[in-house]
Amino acid sequence: MLQGVFAAVLTPMRADLSVDRAAYAAHCRRLLDEGAHGLGIFGTTGEANSLSVAERIAAWEDLVADGIPADVLLPGTGACALPDAVTLAKSALDVGAPGVLALPPFYYKGVSDDGLFRFFAELIERVGDDRLRLFLYHIPPMAQVGFTPELIGRLLEAYPGVVVGTKDSAGDPARIERLCREFPDLTVFAGSERFLLDTLHWGGDGCISATCNVTAPQSRRVFDLWRAGDPEAAAQQTALTEARTFLEGFPPIPALKAIMRARTGDDVWTNLRPPLDALDDERARAVVARL
Amino acid sequence: MLQGVFAAVLTPMRADLSVDRAAYAAHCRRLLDEGAHGLGIFGTTGEANSLSVAERIAAWEDLVADGIPADVLLPGTGACALPDAVTLAKSALDVGAPGVLALPPFYYKGVSDDGLFRFFAELIERVGDDRLRLFLYHIPPMAQVGFTPELIGRLLEAYPGVVVGTKDSAGDPARIERLCREFPDLTVFAGSERFLLDTLHWGGDGCISATCNVTAPQSRRVFDLWRAGDPEAAAQQTALTEARTFLEGFPPIPALKAIMRARTGDDVWTNLRPPLDALDDERARAVVARL
Repeated sequence: MLQGVFAAVLTPMRADLSVDRAAYAAHCRRLLDEGAHGLGIFGTTGEANSLSVAERIAAWEDLVADGIPADVLLPGTGACALPDAVTLAKSALDVGAPGVLALPPFYYKGVSDDGLFRFFAELIERVGDDRLRLFLYHIPPMAQVGFTPELIGRLLEAYPGVVVGTKDSAGDPARIERLCREFPDLTVFAGSERFLLDTLHWGGDGCISATCNVTAPQSRRVFDLWRAGDPEAAAQQTALTEARTFLEGFPPIPALKAIMRARTGDDVWTNLRPPLDALDDERARAVVARL
Repeated sequence: MLQGVFAAVLTPMRADLSVDRAAYAAHCRRLLDEGAHGLGIFGTTGEANSLSVAERIAAWEDLVADGIPADVLLPGTGACALPDAVTLAKSALDVGAPGVLALPPFYYKGVSDDGLFRFFAELIERVGDDRLRLFLYHIPPMAQVGFTPELIGRLLEAYPGVVVGTKDSAGDPARIERLCREFPDLTVFAGSERFLLDTLHWGGDGCISATCNVTAPQSRRVFDLWRAGDPEAAAQQTALTEARTFLEGFPPIPALKAIMRARTGDDVWTNLRPPLDALDDERARAVVARL
């Protein structure tokens, strides 16, 4: 059972925009050492959709070969094209990941719940593997297309034990609370550590967050205090929320890469795949100065 | 020089959702016989983003092998991932297409013109082929991300003779007029035959339209009358606009496939890749009855 603090892991890239294998494994190891329970690799923060299917598969195969335990990985396997989503999910199972984080197909807008249901039904059928555990990745600010609670309910009923969880990045705590209460068997991760303690109180399971690339220790502390029933959890959450609020003043992926560059001194962190831009020097200094 | 009436070609699919090669070539041939000057294959209407890169490449290789002339093809090569966009563009050049229709990377929202410029600069550099002719595919209702006139101007200035055209599916005639006037060297296709005659009057080059799957003869007639300087063009455009207006009352891809099914009697036209749904029987009857 996946639970706790997951970093939505950044992907370090060389100047030629290829994944830097050594820096990637080192970053994943550091996040685990800092207290992350797991690693949401190749989601929005990992620039997954800016990489080809083959690049994503090679990167997570390398990661496991380089010693990152497969059982902490939650790979992003979302794609607009059903065959790509199938290929990615099969590969994630093959490396031993305990679950996959699946975007809805996000090119066509205004699609029906029926059409999305059919996409996931075909995906599950075509993967055809009892080990498949699907986490529904709800992130309307990017994907525009999302999962209504009704659709989540339909998928849970049709595929119990296969559709098992969600990451909710809508930014709406009322929705997270609703999902926790309405679907007690669903593993619910908030998409931001801002809602970590609330989500745990509502019966949810933790968070998968971009900013956990730099707030993993503090986020883990909230989780541990909550688990211990220590009322100090609330004060720790307040401090964590402050750090998150500061970071929200910057474009997330460029800002987090700028911080990683300052922390490691490694220029590999200055590279982003287009259409994303690195922070200019002034903003990079501003985000780094505070932390 | 590409000019005239282009159908944004539907992709017929078997029950297992694979491309039906024979039906695809037959449909393309019929559109050319009906008067289409060219074929915009694997754009939004062709469900391009619901197919893998390998599927799209195989389909247009088959099409040319099956006798459709490569020099009327404008293949869609858009992708969120730069390596995919490069692979698709190279393949389109290899089959002999005179141009490619390129979406901006459409996963990340709110991206900068700098980031989009960098995407296309990298694409052009990595394709590295003097034959490349890029048409910028502006379709904000689907992609959300689009091309500002300023970005188009920057790309034209940086890559003259490579960035050569646009398909504008914003649905705003004022924008089409602006592009025609501001960039006289740009090949401008309206994304709807509703704006065909206006676009030609403004100095633009034609239309690339979904509904031209069923209105190719009427659209061609507008073009021919305009070219002949025949004032009858306006009345023909009015009739064409009426047909288009009727079709806009239905979800375009399902409705057009329902019409093709009625016209050909071939069940291959009832299949759509999820997340798109076929029309229900009642709406299919309604759209077919009128035509």
